[in-house]
Amino acid sequence: MVGYGFMGAAHSHAWRTAHRFFDLPATPVLHTLAGRTESSLVAAAERYGFARTTTRWQDLLEEPEIDVIDICTPGDTHVEIALAALASGKHVLCEKPLANSVEESERMTAAAADARAQGVRSLCGFSYRRTPALAYARQLVAEGAVGEIRQVRAQYLQDWLSDADAPMTWRLDKDKAGSGALGDIGAHIIDLAQWITGQDISAVSGTLETVVPTRPAAGDMQGLGGTGDLSGERQQVTVDDLALFTARFADGVLGSFEATRMAQGRKNAMRVEINGSKGSIAFDFERMNELEVYDATAPAGRQGFTRVLTTEPEHPYAAAWWPTGHGLGYEHTFTHQIADLVRAIGEGTDPSPSFEEALQVQRVLAAVEASSADGSSWQGVAPSAAAKNSISTSTSQERTR
Amino acid sequence: MVGYGFMGAAHSHAWRTAHRFFDLPATPVLHTLAGRTESSLVAAAERYGFARTTTRWQDLLEEPEIDVIDICTPGDTHVEIALAALASGKHVLCEKPLANSVEESERMTAAAADARAQGVRSLCGFSYRRTPALAYARQLVAEGAVGEIRQVRAQYLQDWLSDADAPMTWRLDKDKAGSGALGDIGAHIIDLAQWITGQDISAVSGTLETVVPTRPAAGDMQGLGGTGDLSGERQQVTVDDLALFTARFADGVLGSFEATRMAQGRKNAMRVEINGSKGSIAFDFERMNELEVYDATAPAGRQGFTRVLTTEPEHPYAAAWWPTGHGLGYEHTFTHQIADLVRAIGEGTDPSPSFEEALQVQRVLAAVEASSADGSSWQGVAPSAAAKNSISTSTSQERTR
Amino acid sequence: MVGYGFMGAAHSHAWRTAHRFFDLPATPVLHTLAGRTESSLVAAAERYGFARTTTRWQDLLEEPEIDVIDICTPGDTHVEIALAALASGKHVLCEKPLANSVEESERMTAAAADARAQGVRSLCGFSYRRTPALAYARQLVAEGAVGEIRQVRAQYLQDWLSDADAPMTWRLDKDKAGSGALGDIGAHIIDLAQWITGQDISAVSGTLETVVPTRPAAGDMQGLGGTGDLSGERQQVTVDDLALFTARFADGVLGSFEATRMAQGRKNAMRVEINGSKGSIAFDFERMNELEVYDATAPAGRQGFTRVLTTEPEHPYAAAWWPTGHGLGYEHTFTHQIADLVRAIGEGTDPSPSFEEALQVQRVLAAVEASSADGSSWQGVAPSAAAKNSISTSTSQERTR
Amino acid sequence: MVGYGFMGAAHSHAWRTAHRFFDLPATPVLHTLAGRTESSLVAAAERYGFARTTTRWQDLLEEPEIDVIDICTPGDTHVEIALAALASGKHVLCEKPLANSVEESERMTAAAADARAQGVRSLCGFSYRRTPALAYARQLVAEGAVGEIRQVRAQYLQDWLSDADAPMTWRLDKDKAGSGALGDIGAHIIDLAQWITGQDISAVSGTLETVVPTRPAAGDMQGLGGTGDLSGERQQVTVDDLALFTARFADGVLGSFEATRMAQGRKNAMRVEINGSKGSIAFDFERMNELEVYDATAPAGRQGFTRVLTTEPEHPYAAAWWPTGHGLGYEHTFTHQIADLVRAIGEGTDPSPSFEEALQVQRVLAAVEASSADGSSWQGVAPSAAAKNSISTSTSQERTR
Repeated sequence: MVGYGFMGAAHSHAWRTAHRFFDLPATPVLHTLAGRTESSLVAAAERYGFARTTTRWQDLLEEPEIDVIDICTPGDTHVEIALAALASGKHVLCEKPLANSVEESERMTAAAADARAQGVRSLCGFSYRRTPALAYARQLVAEGAVGEIRQVRAQYLQDWLSDADAPMTWRLDKDKAGSGALGDIGAHIIDLAQWITGQDISAVSGTLETVVPTRPAAGDMQGLGGTGDLSGERQQVTVDDLALFTARFADGVLGSFEATRMAQGRKNAMRVEINGSKGSIAFDFERMNELEVYDATAPAGRQGFTRVLTTEPEHPYAAAWWPTGHGLGYEHTFTHQIADLVRAIGEGTDPSPSFEEALQVQRVLAAVEASSADGSSWQGVAPSAAAKNSISTSTSQERTR
Repeated sequence: MVGYGFMGAAHSHAWRTAHRFFDLPATPVLHTLAGRTESSLVAAAERYGFARTTTRWQDLLEEPEIDVIDICTPGDTHVEIALAALASGKHVLCEKPLANSVEESERMTAAAADARAQGVRSLCGFSYRRTPALAYARQLVAEGAVGEIRQVRAQYLQDWLSDADAPMTWRLDKDKAGSGALGDIGAHIIDLAQWITGQDISAVSGTLETVVPTRPAAGDMQGLGGTGDLSGERQQVTVDDLALFTARFADGVLGSFEATRMAQGRKNAMRVEINGSKGSIAFDFERMNELEVYDATAPAGRQGFTRVLTTEPEHPYAAAWWPTGHGLGYEHTFTHQIADLVRAIGEGTDPSPSFEEALQVQRVLAAVEASSADGSSWQGVAPSAAAKNSISTSTSQERTR
Repeated sequence: MVGYGFMGAAHSHAWRTAHRFFDLPATPVLHTLAGRTESSLVAAAERYGFARTTTRWQDLLEEPEIDVIDICTPGDTHVEIALAALASGKHVLCEKPLANSVEESERMTAAAADARAQGVRSLCGFSYRRTPALAYARQLVAEGAVGEIRQVRAQYLQDWLSDADAPMTWRLDKDKAGSGALGDIGAHIIDLAQWITGQDISAVSGTLETVVPTRPAAGDMQGLGGTGDLSGERQQVTVDDLALFTARFADGVLGSFEATRMAQGRKNAMRVEINGSKGSIAFDFERMNELEVYDATAPAGRQGFTRVLTTEPEHPYAAAWWPTGHGLGYEHTFTHQIADLVRAIGEGTDPSPSFEEALQVQRVLAAVEASSADGSSWQGVAPSAAAKNSISTSTSQERTR
Repeated sequence: MVGYGFMGAAHSHAWRTAHRFFDLPATPVLHTLAGRTESSLVAAAERYGFARTTTRWQDLLEEPEIDVIDICTPGDTHVEIALAALASGKHVLCEKPLANSVEESERMTAAAADARAQGVRSLCGFSYRRTPALAYARQLVAEGAVGEIRQVRAQYLQDWLSDADAPMTWRLDKDKAGSGALGDIGAHIIDLAQWITGQDISAVSGTLETVVPTRPAAGDMQGLGGTGDLSGERQQVTVDDLALFTARFADGVLGSFEATRMAQGRKNAMRVEINGSKGSIAFDFERMNELEVYDATAPAGRQGFTRVLTTEPEHPYAAAWWPTGHGLGYEHTFTHQIADLVRAIGEGTDPSPSFEEALQVQRVLAAVEASSADGSSWQGVAPSAAAKNSISTSTSQERTR
């Protein structure tokens, strides 16, 4: 594994836990943790349960005992590591975003396609797909439970930048972060909307906004350089903190999208709603164990949104865990991702989301940026080379005990 | 109409409004308002739309133009007025509680039975039955939507006595009010539970409690007598402010009941939940336009409580009002009551709840008091003479425009 | 009153009821109902409580006993009636939309300004403003409870056109209806967003969509003409059934707006959310007696959305009605409107929303249409001549009993 | 660890995970798993991560490398294993219920007290206490946030026995299970109510019911013996499936309690509500990351239940996990339990809930049974020897990364 921040904690937990609850064809071993700073690297390795460390990620590629490279570093480093890993024949799990640009993403996708021909697997970590409620939503839509899709509504609402005096961080600096709310959280709802509907977005019209344009300097320790922390000095925020766009899906359906860090009181309200001719589904990650389902074919008088607790054996992944009504948490999405990845490797199939799918998300992000820069004019999204539907999307549902 | 307090406002609104939204066989006219205090009586008559007033309620009985006597006075006066009205051949609408004792209720019930033989109708105002969601709940249970009933759960939660320094009122004085939370709000959930399940309560075990036993004297103006409002003086609360009891229904099912004015934050949480072998229904008056319905026969994976907005044409009373999703308010229950009463009079049928049904509620209240006084021992409830099922319970559902 | 459809029922109920619950300087009398079809007109007058009828609305203007003209007819007739009424010195209550075009609205606004100089009052019926929760939301925002506004989110979600085989109606014919979801329901959330924030919208970028472009012919009886109801014939829908737009407010804040009739399962989900630096408020008309309030200045650990039941004496209009926790319904918004109008007339002040405010809504609608027609390009909204803040917006909150 | 069923999975996950997210004075090692059946024992050990197995639990006591004995076996075996473990100087984590009788629980409590004097720690696994929302609720009550407690309401609602044809299991056989809904799930809400209020229950009046008295025989494989699975044969259920009782707390407050497996649609609705003079708190495990808090001292007009997402750094245990708004799941309560236990051992303090606290729960259960058997008469609960307040209840809140 390369990288040991917040995502490193989530990923390593998943690697340690997946085979304890799912029957897997192989038992993952946390072999080596790679990172830049020796001291914190060793502490993280101990914390996460890695046997070895290295400050040279290239070492991982040369180690024959290692089968999978898990890339948890910032987006600007993905392309180099992923290309090298795929070239060396290692399977790759790459955290989202796939890369910081469409061009890099395209190179990675091409490399993944080449590697696939050699039996090397790759997966981009849009882990929210593995929320049982969302995987079940996709299944319901695919089964026709909502009928013909009429409309899509997707929001990712957070509030941690509502305070204008929240200090500057590298995440708000375009040079370092690449993107703001759009790329960081908007990417998730783009991926989910496409995945659940089974339709790519083909065009967008949108607006990116920096609601709070300057913030207090955070001082040297935050890695923003400068000659000191002048009291009262404010720095320029160079990424969006609010993104609004309308999307046209391949089949003509319209969707409205919002990614924001200004929604005071909304902590992690990732919401997806699909309205169709026969029904609707609605989800909010703040209540991740629930899916609201509306059935317009139910008897008159008895129609309404049904709050389904997605903890039944019939729900994706749920059978591996606890009795009905005993909820799961955020990290389970990562554990499910590892279970699916290890199975795919074992079965010789391609896991999802593929790099192609991640590239498609990247193209939508780029189109939103282009639209915003051009007065919200409609911008087309280049279609994925590979059709999404050819990708295996099986989930690990079997109870293992 | 006799009495012009809070209930007078609700009743007169209903009398003015019912024929505007429902097709009725007769058009109600607010003829004469009777009350004790000349000055406020005249003001109330003007406010409510009565043409005449009298300080002698007996005048109403002698007036040939008057068909219905609507009794909105305190419970201790019901028996005298109702007996006289029924004897004079007037139809009677009597606010709940039917009376302050079982004995009085029995006399009124007997009088109502005699009058019924003469074509004189009587109804006791448990108006919550006319909430569309609750009338629909009864219908669902009767249709077998919940299967065999397993359990009943009923709560009426209020909070206006949580503050120990809320002043003494006549409602907390047993001599004047007769009863506390049990009789005032507990009576509603007893009536509803029996009505929705179609089963009488046959025995109870309960506890009455006065959580805050003394309260600041409220002074002469509150009608509590005394020679003045001594600062700091506290008076004894002589009724319960919390009632908890378990009930056995005629068919053996157990129900848990709670009536309280100590539930800080619960403003008017009148809740009824019926759990059955095939499903459940759950209601909370704080969201009076919603009914939660659970269908255990729905496909596995899609089960959950469905939030039904009871504003569809299929729901009782709803078709007479606004488009779907446009909610009704508290006073609509009274308007529906008048619509049903006027129709029953016109059709020559007996409206519901009958005095017999109200007497049965009174008997349950008495049994709870007896149980509480005897260490929560189980106390039987004498069965109603008249079977509830013989009473017409038709509702006014036709849209009139 | 002119017109006696759905709005006629709601308005006449309000005229009959307002003085029963609010202390008004005058007691409204339902004088004459004007309409086109004699037979149904007479029936409606009896139902609604009008003493007289006329098929010539001009008669109303000549009747000295009539003080107020209430216009409940379709939008295309508003301008003629309103101009004549104002010219004749009658106060005017005009249902929304003010008119079917900006040009007509401008003429009406100019006439209202002239009449105002003569003491003649005018009000456009955006009645949702009189929902207690929304009036309270405005008050909270004005008091600074949410701090600096960061973002606005407004949706009006309905579902009655989700079914592609729902028949054609005149509402879906641009010649007759003028507009679709945008003008009919979108207008409400535009008005509310501007009113609650105290800021006009200055520019928009949007998309109008007809999701279901053809519908089964409804036959002659629906007033759509044609030579008969050919089985299987489908007609063109010429208005939008989905409207999505982004708005820029005068102070620079961005808002996202959606008006749709495709949101399967959403019956009347008119939602408004305001996110600010210090807090948020959120409302959904499907739960019209609740307001969600978030206070970012509350102690850490205790922050969250507070579900306020807006039935307390402190909430606008609520004191006139029932005890706490006893909800109001849809028609109360109209009753409050009449109470405020009659008071304004009595006090010689201008009621709100003024025609100027309604014109501003009309201009936003026109700008959205222009943007949609021009590839979602940003379109400016001409500012109102009269500043909104100069308009009296007092509400009737005093308890009258 | 002894036992490897459902609880074995949860406990072993917690032992593997606690030190990965909390700073602990020692790193737990899964040493040996003890159980009865060799083959499934070995599989479980591999699954859970134990290095060794034994079919003789006594082996664990003789192994010097083992510090803690974790007892996950059925309740009837607890007393023997726990007494032996404590006598051998091993720290003991014993799953709830402490034992199947008050007498056994008393012997265990006495042994724990003796062992404590030798520095040996013991904890009974009422793990729900470690739900962040409930630990926070206790903290709020202790800080006086709800003022003087007026009333307690606690329910544990499940539905898996609603179906009368759900087969017989050993859990419904009194000889094997000891108790039904009361002991299995009622015990949790008794423990929580006492812990959150800081008050012991001193007397109870209750009713135990077996709503479905016979069930289809399940066949030999279910361990119910018999001479075969005669089609249609039904067996007697000998424990309660519904328990209702009223409790008096030491300070005089009344609480209502319900434990049921008949609440169709309620999957794991463990609910606790505390109403006080200044506020209320309400919790439902089906939404375990939320706590509803009502503050009666908030400004008039702004009062209401606040939905607190208990994922903030200020909430117990939450800082060790994910960013705000990213929820936790059921198994986290066990992980927190291990973290607190290991810290207590390291610090030489006594963890909570102590065996004394668990014994008090057992006494309440026994009193409810006695009351039910004696016509719901009030039965006193013998007070705990050791005051609960002397027990350390510190929680592990520090973020470790």
